This record gives sequence, C-alpha cells and structure tokens, in this order.
Amino acid sequence: NRPRELGIPFGILPTGSWNAITDVPGVKVGHFTKIEGESIRTGVTAILPHGGNLFQEKVPAAIFVGNGFGKLAGVTQVQELGNIESPIILTNTLSVAAGIEGAVRYSLERPGNENVGSVNAVVGETNDGFLNDIRGMHISPEEVIQTIKSAKSASVEEGNVGAGTGTICFGWKGGIGSSSRKLPESLGGYTVGVLVQTNFGGNLQIAGVPVGEKLGKYPFKDALEKADGSCMIVIATDAPVLERNLERMAQRAMMGLGKTGGIASNGSGDYVIAFSTAEGLRIPYSAKFGTKEEASFLRNDDMSSLFLAVIEATEEAVINSLFAAETMTGKEGRVIEALPKEQVLEWIKSNNP
Amino acid sequence: NRPRELGIPFGILPTGSWNAITDVPGVKVGHFTKIEGESIRTGVTAILPHGGNLFQEKVPAAIFVGNGFGKLAGVTQVQELGNIESPIILTNTLSVAAGIEGAVRYSLERPGNENVGSVNAVVGETNDGFLNDIRGMHISPEEVIQTIKSAKSASVEEGNVGAGTGTICFGWKGGIGSSSRKLPESLGGYTVGVLVQTNFGGNLQIAGVPVGEKLGKYPFKDALEKADGSCMIVIATDAPVLERNLERMAQRAMMGLGKTGGIASNGSGDYVIAFSTAEGLRIPYSAKFGTKEEASFLRNDDMSSLFLAVIEATEEAVINSLFAAETMTGKEGRVIEALPKEQVLEWIKSNNP
Amino acid sequence: NRPRELGIPFGILPTGSWNAITDVPGVKVGHFTKIEGESIRTGVTAILPHGGNLFQEKVPAAIFVGNGFGKLAGVTQVQELGNIESPIILTNTLSVAAGIEGAVRYSLERPGNENVGSVNAVVGETNDGFLNDIRGMHISPEEVIQTIKSAKSASVEEGNVGAGTGTICFGWKGGIGSSSRKLPESLGGYTVGVLVQTNFGGNLQIAGVPVGEKLGKYPFKDALEKADGSCMIVIATDAPVLERNLERMAQRAMMGLGKTGGIASNGSGDYVIAFSTAEGLRIPYSAKFGTKEEASFLRNDDMSSLFLAVIEATEEAVINSLFAAETMTGKEGRVIEALPKEQVLEWIKSNNP
Amino acid sequence: NRPRELGIPFGILPTGSWNAITDVPGVKVGHFTKIEGESIRTGVTAILPHGGNLFQEKVPAAIFVGNGFGKLAGVTQVQELGNIESPIILTNTLSVAAGIEGAVRYSLERPGNENVGSVNAVVGETNDGFLNDIRGMHISPEEVIQTIKSAKSASVEEGNVGAGTGTICFGWKGGIGSSSRKLPESLGGYTVGVLVQTNFGGNLQIAGVPVGEKLGKYPFKDALEKADGSCMIVIATDAPVLERNLERMAQRAMMGLGKTGGIASNGSGDYVIAFSTAEGLRIPYSAKFGTKEEASFLRNDDMSSLFLAVIEATEEAVINSLFAAETMTGKEGRVIEALPKEQVLEWIKSNNP
Repeated sequence: NRPRELGIPFGILPTGSWNAITDVPGVKVGHFTKIEGESIRTGVTAILPHGGNLFQEKVPAAIFVGNGFGKLAGVTQVQELGNIESPIILTNTLSVAAGIEGAVRYSLERPGNENVGSVNAVVGETNDGFLNDIRGMHISPEEVIQTIKSAKSASVEEGNVGAGTGTICFGWKGGIGSSSRKLPESLGGYTVGVLVQTNFGGNLQIAGVPVGEKLGKYPFKDALEKADGSCMIVIATDAPVLERNLERMAQRAMMGLGKTGGIASNGSGDYVIAFSTAEGLRIPYSAKFGTKEEASFLRNDDMSSLFLAVIEATEEAVINSLFAAETMTGKEGRVIEALPKEQVLEWIKSNNP
Repeated sequence: NRPRELGIPFGILPTGSWNAITDVPGVKVGHFTKIEGESIRTGVTAILPHGGNLFQEKVPAAIFVGNGFGKLAGVTQVQELGNIESPIILTNTLSVAAGIEGAVRYSLERPGNENVGSVNAVVGETNDGFLNDIRGMHISPEEVIQTIKSAKSASVEEGNVGAGTGTICFGWKGGIGSSSRKLPESLGGYTVGVLVQTNFGGNLQIAGVPVGEKLGKYPFKDALEKADGSCMIVIATDAPVLERNLERMAQRAMMGLGKTGGIASNGSGDYVIAFSTAEGLRIPYSAKFGTKEEASFLRNDDMSSLFLAVIEATEEAVINSLFAAETMTGKEGRVIEALPKEQVLEWIKSNNP
Repeated sequence: NRPRELGIPFGILPTGSWNAITDVPGVKVGHFTKIEGESIRTGVTAILPHGGNLFQEKVPAAIFVGNGFGKLAGVTQVQELGNIESPIILTNTLSVAAGIEGAVRYSLERPGNENVGSVNAVVGETNDGFLNDIRGMHISPEEVIQTIKSAKSASVEEGNVGAGTGTICFGWKGGIGSSSRKLPESLGGYTVGVLVQTNFGGNLQIAGVPVGEKLGKYPFKDALEKADGSCMIVIATDAPVLERNLERMAQRAMMGLGKTGGIASNGSGDYVIAFSTAEGLRIPYSAKFGTKEEASFLRNDDMSSLFLAVIEATEEAVINSLFAAETMTGKEGRVIEALPKEQVLEWIKSNNP
Repeated sequence: NRPRELGIPFGILPTGSWNAITDVPGVKVGHFTKIEGESIRTGVTAILPHGGNLFQEKVPAAIFVGNGFGKLAGVTQVQELGNIESPIILTNTLSVAAGIEGAVRYSLERPGNENVGSVNAVVGETNDGFLNDIRGMHISPEEVIQTIKSAKSASVEEGNVGAGTGTICFGWKGGIGSSSRKLPESLGGYTVGVLVQTNFGGNLQIAGVPVGEKLGKYPFKDALEKADGSCMIVIATDAPVLERNLERMAQRAMMGLGKTGGIASNGSGDYVIAFSTAEGLRIPYSAKFGTKEEASFLRNDDMSSLFLAVIEATEEAVINSLFAAETMTGKEGRVIEALPKEQVLEWIKSNNP
C-alpha cells in the first residue's frame, strides 16, 4: 500500500496510471538488487528514456546540481550539448566506474553502434556505506549491463531495490521511490514522472506533519544526519520541452525535496536529471551537414504547470520510498529501521479527517 | 501579532530577538512607502550589510538565481568578485534604473569615495503592476538615497511597506517579511536573518495546512497565478562564511520557498542574495600590492546547520509577510485582500493542539 | 583605411560587404557621441537586432561572462528565458541607470506596448573615467532614446564614437570596432557580425606581431594596465541558432580577444552578447496557451564554422577599433595617443611580404 | 630541442627551471605509454598536486569548462566544495571508467584512508580513436595506479607519451606538452605551471605565423578538423589562491588556446583544471566541529599577472606538444605526421630576425 492509497494527500494534480516514472510512455526502469552475506547491500537502477537505440536517437536533457557533493558522471556533456545518449544509471558512490563501463559497453555493443568511439554515460550515485561494504566495490559492469537489459515499461518496484537497496533517508530506511503527474488536457495533457534514490537527511515532514520532530529524529539531534548522503532525482516527461526548460523543471525538484524536509546538507550530493521523450525532439547521432533540427516545443509561458507537476511528484516519490522500504540489517550488524508507518498515518489522518 | 506569536510552528531552531534580518548585528533596513492617489502603490526597501562605508569595506557575498525572469542588477560582479560594495535595494520592476542611480549617487557621495569611478549597485525588484501604476516609474533616485539613509538596526516593519507596498502573494496581499534563526552555541551560535519581498504564486501551505486548496486559491484554477511576480530574498549572517558557501546558503532559500507552496513559476523572478557581516572577512577596497587577505572561515563540513537556518527563516519570513499585509486597493480600483488570518489560524491550531 | 584594406591579414574566412555587424540583415547600429568642454568624453551605442518591435518579437539570445567585473544589466533574464526583448545599449559604467531607463522608456512607448509592464533592458558598459568625467553621469535617458532612434542599417562608424568615445585599449586610444564574416555557401552561407567597445589591457599582438612588446607598452610594465577597463562584445548572426549554441558562440569571442593579446585582467569586465536574427526563430511576446514554438535550427555538429567566424571577427573588430581611434585629450588635460599605425604597419608588412 | 630553445618567442614572462608544470614545487607527473601491436596507441598521465595523502590534505581547486563535449569525471564536487582530493588522471575517452577505478582504489589503499568510503576522482580524456583501438578499452585500473605511483617531480616528458600517445593536434601529431612561468619577485614570485593533452583542431598559429594556412591544413579545408578531439589543460600554482580565483585562472587558459589557433570546435571537449599547492591552504579531510580554516590568500586585485602567466604557459605548452610529438602509425595503418618543424622554424625566424 502506497501513501496515496493510504489517504495521504500530495497536492492538486492527478497522477498517471502507475503513479510512476514509467507512466511517461516508452520510459523503462530496471533494478538489480545485490544482497549477499552480511555486508553486501547495494544495487543498480537503470532508467531508459526510450526503448530504441539511445545513442542514435538522443533525447533533449538537462542536469541541475542541487548540491554537488557527489560523483555524477556525464554532467558537462549533457549541459553543453543538451542531450542524453545512454541509459541513466544509479548505483553506489564507489561503483560509478562500473556504472560507466557498463553503460559504455552496452552502448558500443548495440547494433548500429559498431563505429561509435565516444559515449557519454550518465551515472549517479548515493553512498550506502553505512549498511553496505562499499569499499568492496561489489557492482560489476556486467551487472550494470544486465540491469539495463532487464528494464521494462511497468510499475516501478520501490524501497529496498536496485540502487536503493542500502540507502538511508531521514534516519529511516530509504530506497527507490517513484511518482507521476498527468496534467489535465486543458494544460496540455502531458505526463511528468519522477524516480528518486533517497539517501539524505533533514527534518521529515509528510503532508504537513512534522514527523521528524514528533519521532525525535531530526538534524543536529543525533549523528545520523552526518551520513554522507545524496538524493538522485530523475525526471521524465512526454511534453515537448527543450533542454533549457528541462533544466528549469529539474531545478524545481529541489523545491519538492524541500517540502519533505530535506535540507541538502553539506554531504548530500543532490542532482536532478530531466529528459523529454517527445518523439519530435529526438536528436539523430548523424545527419548530413546542413540538416536542421525541426522542432515544435513548449514556450516559456506554458511551463508553470509542469513545474508544479515536478514539485508534487518529487515530494510524493520521496515519501513513497520511505513507505516501501523495510527494516534492513547490514554491515557489522547495523540496523536501519523502516519508518513507523502506522504511527505516521495516524498523525496524518487526524489532521486530514 | 506575528504568526509565531499566534502559535504557528516553524521548525526547530530558535529565532533571534527581533526574529528579523536585523538580528544579525550591524545590518540595517530602511523602507520608503509611496502610496499616492489611486494608482501609486509602490516603494523601496534598502538593506545595509553594515553601517560603515560599504565601498571601502566590502562584504563577502553571493547571489543564487532561483528563476531568472527578473531584472536584478549587479549579479555578475558579485559572482565574479565574491563581494557586495553597496546597499542592497529592492523596488518595483520598472524602477531598477532609479534604484541603481540612487545607490551609485549615495556611494559616490560618501566621505572617502571622492575618487571612486565604479560602483556595483545590487538592485532587485518585483512587479507590483497589478495595484501600482508601474509604467509611471514613480520612484526617484532621491527617494532611493533617502531610503538608504533612513535604514536602521531595529525590528523590521512588515507587510505593505517599502518594496512590498503593492505586491501580491499566493493571490493574497503580500509584502515585506523577515525572520531569523540563532544557532545554539554548540553549533557556533551564529545568527541567520532573512528578508523577503513576496510577490509570487503557488499552492499556499502553512505549517503543513494546504491553505491554498482549502481557500480555493491555487495555481491553474484562476488567472492570478499568471501575475508577473517575483520573490526577492536577502540573507544576512554573522557566521564567517566565504562566497562559495554563501552561495550554497542562498540556494537553500529556494527550498524554504518550496515549503510555503511556491513553485517558481515561469514569470516569477526569484533571486537570493546572501552576505556575511563577519568583521574578519571584510574586503578593503584598496590595499598595497601583495597584501593578502587573512581570513578565518567555516569549513564545508560545518555548513549544514546554517542551511537549515536559511530554510526555516525563509519559510517564516514569507508567512510573516502574508500575516502583516493588509487589504490594499490600488490602480483602477483593484482590490487585493489580506489573507483570512483567523480562518487559517483555526485550521492550523486544530492540527497542532 | 581599415586594417584589412591596409593589408593586415585576419584569418581565412571572407567578410561581409561592410565588414561590420550590420552585414547581418536587419541589424541596426546607432551612436551618440558626447564631447563637451574639457571633461566630457563619453557616449552611447545602440544595437538593434531588428527594425521591428523587439518586445513583441523577441530574438533568441545568450550572454557569456568572460570576466564579471562589470555592471551589465539584464543578464539573468536573457540566460533564463533565452531571448532579448529590447535594444542593446553600451555606455559608460556610471550611466547604466540612464541606459536602462532609456531602453525601458523607449520600449514602453512603442506602439503595441501600451500594456507592457516589464522590460528587460540589456545595458553594457566600460569605464571611460580616465578621459571622461564619469562621476558627472553625463548621459541622460533621453540621449539613450535618441541613440536608439538614430540606429540604422549601414556601415558602422568606428573609433572615438558612441560608447567608445573615451575608451582606452592596450594603453592606446580604443573605441568602437566592428567586423563580420560570411561563410561560404557550402557551410551554410550565414553571416556573423561583431561589434566591440574596447577598453582593456594586455600584450597587444596584431597579425602575429608583438606590437605591445615592440612599442614598450605591455602589462606589468607601467600603470596603464591597472585601468579599470572592460570589453563589451556583441555578436549578431542570421544563422538559425538557438540560445544554447548562441552561448557557445559567445564563449568563443574570448578566444578572439586572446588573439589580440587581451588577458581579461581582474578589473576588465568582459561580456559577450549574442543573438540570432533568423526570422523563423522570433519569439512572440504573447500567444494563446498551448501554442508551440515551431523552429528549424542548426545542429550542434554544424556550429564549428560559426565558432571560427566569431573568433576571426572579434579579433579584427578589436584591431579595427584601434586603427580608427584618434588621439584624444580629455579630463584634466590627459592625453591618450592613437596607436602609431604607420610603425605597426611597417612591422606587419615586413612579416607578410 | 624545445621551441623556446629553438628561438621561438612566447610572451614576456620568464619560465621556471624545467619550463614545466613540475616547476611548481611538489607537483608530480607520471606517464604510462601503451603502444602494442598495430592498434594500441594510448596511455595515461597522472598529475599529483603534492606528494602527501591528497585525500587527507585536499588542495583548493577549480574546473572551467571551455567546451563540455567530453567525459571529465569529478567536475561537480570540485565546483561545489572547491577542492581536489585525488590525483588528476588523463587518458582516452573510453577509459574514463578505468581512470576512476584506478584513482579510487589508489586512494582507498593509502595509509590513513582505511575508513574512507567516498573519493572524488578527477579523470579527463581526449579521443585518440583515429590511431588507437579505443573501443578495445586497453587501459586497466592497475595501469592507472601504476601511473600514479610512478609520478615524480622532474622535467616532464612531452609528445607521444602517456595520455598523449595517440592524440592529434591541428592535423599533426599532438601529445603531452608542458610549460611554466615564474613571476618576478615584485609580482609575488609565484610559479604557474601548465600541462596539456592536445587533441584538437583549428588554424595553427605559432609566434604569429599562420602555420596552418601556410601548410594548407586548416579548418573547413579537409576532414581532419572533424576529428572528435579535446584539449585537457591542467594548471598548478604555488600562489595562495582560493577556488574562485583559481576558476578565473582556469578560464584564461582558453585565451591561450585561442592564441595557438584553437577554436574549441563542437566536438572538442576542452576543460581546464586548476589547483593551488600553497601549504597554508590545504584542507584537512576531518577536523573537530567548529575548527575554522585559517587562510592567507591573494586579493582579486593581485590576480592579473597570474592570468597572463596562464595564457602564456598554455600557448607554449600546446606548441611544445607539437614539437615533441613524432610521426605515429597506428590503427589500420593510419599515419599522422609530425609537424614539419624545420619549415615552421624557418618562417618564424624570418619574422623574428
């Protein structure tokens, strides 16, 4: 049961059918969860903007850096060229190299890419080193390739899966979360989907209830907030939006993070990756010199409802990750508890009778 | 009666004594309110980082652009050189020129500045053109100078004053608001103060109560959200923080804005200006070649509690502006109502018994 | 006689017919030169991207900050929205306010703009305070409006005119310079025009000859390099280029500046403003909600020849300003000599027989 | 024989004793050159800011993106936190993952880093795929570690070594180049060192001679300029400069690149990494909460001579790479010729008798 089904309110816009990033047609998500022995609690999550050859048919994209204490690979090329040409990979901090190698090898091996000699892999991470033996670098490039190949257009598994296997959020077990918004037809009818890997601290607030304070778990009260966290946020939309306005959408995700009580603490590497799946905006890898891009895209004036959609879906995706994640025991017997959902629900319901 | 005094909760950190930006020692604020006839509803607010000669003793500073649909003057020099050398002026969109001329003339005339031939004025604005005859450009450079000279270290008047005289926020009357946080000694004992000029839209939320929805005033429901708004946010701190970390503080203010329900809509020019008043970090205008700056400043690792302070004080300052502002009638007989405070209070109190 | 006509070589691409920014069809330039008494040596230069209503028909645009020690107004809105909606004004440092007020008043008064309440003026400057009584603020908004109205599509007057009246470059008299490049049809046939206001220092090099060294005038040799300079660079093109690639073009202008021996010293506010006049890329001020922009624009892959055009035209425009400027006597009887052109030519010709 | 020894002039500032990045005390450089069979022509170059534990004693640093069509890893953390905590690695485009893994493993294994769970590797690249079987990913993490361990404070080998083994510059064989400048004591006596990996195109100019045009090898004349290039530039200085001014130094390197005729073409990923080795500015990894950084650093006003040093050393380092590189035969029997040095020298000498 997800928070929305339990009656927790999240804004004013309706969701897509799965209430997940995969509500954006064509977007695929794959998880690889690696739980082995007492110390391996990590994984990989892959997001594919579409099911075709991404290198040959790039998508408009942007990256906003909420707090750059992180190792996200591929940033500058996305910002310079305005597109993404490979699957987006999320994993743990010390497995970024495996993520890049996997995404690159996958791309080189795709039919049609036989002569490609340059691939910009976009690989994000959060640090799961409290529960996971992160120094062991337990993710291999092959596992990354496998994750990409397993990706599908379906409801998104949340909580302790994929890159969220070992993460911690507001002192509770975090993980993967996803949500979406579908604008009414009068606003264009577009879908915005968000996927998050939650591993950050702050002063948790859900539907306006100061949960962190009520549960006695908030910043500068105990050591947990010192955790070397991060929040990766991926936004997909089928709205025809070019890179500049995608960057503006990405920037708004930090406002959604703020609504959950996140504070983007010094050690929290917070990044937002946004792309458009609109077919008319695909950028072919090669074209005859002088071929122009012919595009039909939204005006600045029409962006605001998409901004609201990003904020609402980001907030809900974070809370979804907390509700889906279960108590996890990991490295050195450390335990991170799941959010006490029943208590939280009770508080929220008394405020929203 | 300000919201906090009425029992509305705003986070976990204590405030300074005035709960205003002037709790940061040395910071001065001046307002010039211009209400004339049926159509002039505008003004100027000046914030002085310290009471000395700002040009000769510059302060470390940064500016973060939350949404750049605005006319803020002085941005690039602050970003390039890392300091502010003049009073910060807030006014209406079409009076930025008057703001610059006033700040420049004031600076040129200060004793000791007789040979100065270059002044970087920092002038922000929001568009009060719904209530004010903005095209009339009713602010003069002299009024700007008068505002600067009137600035004092005292509690800050809020609501329909100064640059907030004609502004609109979440469809209700906005204005000037201010708030502060004082960190406990164990976290350094520093003060963070925030002043806002609120003129933006979104889905108003106070202490977790979805006020906008309950009052039926929220984005994409009526035309008000199309208002060409802006939110100017000024942050002062006595913490010894250099420009890079001041920029990080500034960036967090947008998360506080998010908590109020702001969405940084397309037309909302949202800017955050942050400076440190720490005396050891002053930058003298001129020095013998080879003189080094000798500074003692906070490490990245110690910034997180200041980030939280910014978020909390920004949220509270916005709500303070709404509680202080009163119903205003302006241009063409247009009326913008004050927030129905009693109704709002009732909702909040039933949630926080 | 301009340098090219005197036989000085500037790269490999051909120029447009005027070898000026006005070779880009529709672009207009106006100068207002103010030389009065012994101390007033200043002026205004206005560049209009097209002859229509700029506010109603905005052009794609970008700004690159080469060194932000300057007061350029209008930066953040251009960067956020990707367009320019008013004439570009160049003047002296302390007359930016007059520049803004003039550009705003001009825009408000244009037929069709009766209801406009927000105008983003783009006003650049350099500091002519060595020769000019800059503290006197001798430019009025009316003179700015007059400059805009006088702009025409014609060859561009260079040297001691307009905003270049009192400027100094490499220790010699600088001023306004302009140049253009016309790509061969095989590369698209596009025109790139550049206009500069030169007021900076460095180690002057012309056609590879170390002129600064030979003339004994170079950095860290005498006090002139301490001059509080700046170089404003404006780039126009009829190539259909959107804002991201316009920013890339703008960034290359700094490489052209480098070729002249400029070093972007600490005090030199160097800014590059670029826009496209392509009619298919105009952005109407207002449109029915949901109206999309339909655009046909160049791919990243096809930008490189435009980059070269920018570099070459920037270098030539700077040298043009030096060759056109004549010795000027100004404030307090100070004299800035014109570049000793005959000597320089002799050196260059002996190297290029 | 390096160009300077052959009489080619490069500006006005004197060099350090090796005329290399290692003139900055403490800086170490290591090369690993991999030439195997007919198709492997690649390698690794490592630059160590100092010989101690870089993770425990970070250095102030900045990165400027000249043209972001590249895969440089580690950018955002350097920009957010203002420091570098690991060796800087240069290699080929598809070996960035190996570079990261090598730098990370090296860091984890250093004594004192037993509990480190997060390392920001800075790994740059250029594409050597014309001469090298880049798709074979022939660099291993172990070879990266070996390169780091081999680094020494000594004169720097140039040309076809390390990460420059297979690179191409202006259509000729490029490679590694290095140069330095030592400011006179009156300007502080600081040293600036530059190392480049040259793999880019443009219109080659040496000491003002249009070599590219004279040799008939310049952009838009033949296919070579389409090469998917890049230029990595690393700047070291012992001047006490914090990250903001390091970024300004980095930005000036692009002006030096411009002087060689580089145009930062669309496909050229050009990045500049700058760091200060000043011992008083080291940033310890951990410190008791509340410990402040105590720093003594240069003022903005004193930066200009360092900017000139960067420009001159960058230009000379690029030309050094061309003079050191020898003709190379690689993949599929392709041959890239060395620059015809004797011809070039003759031209330059006739201009500088």
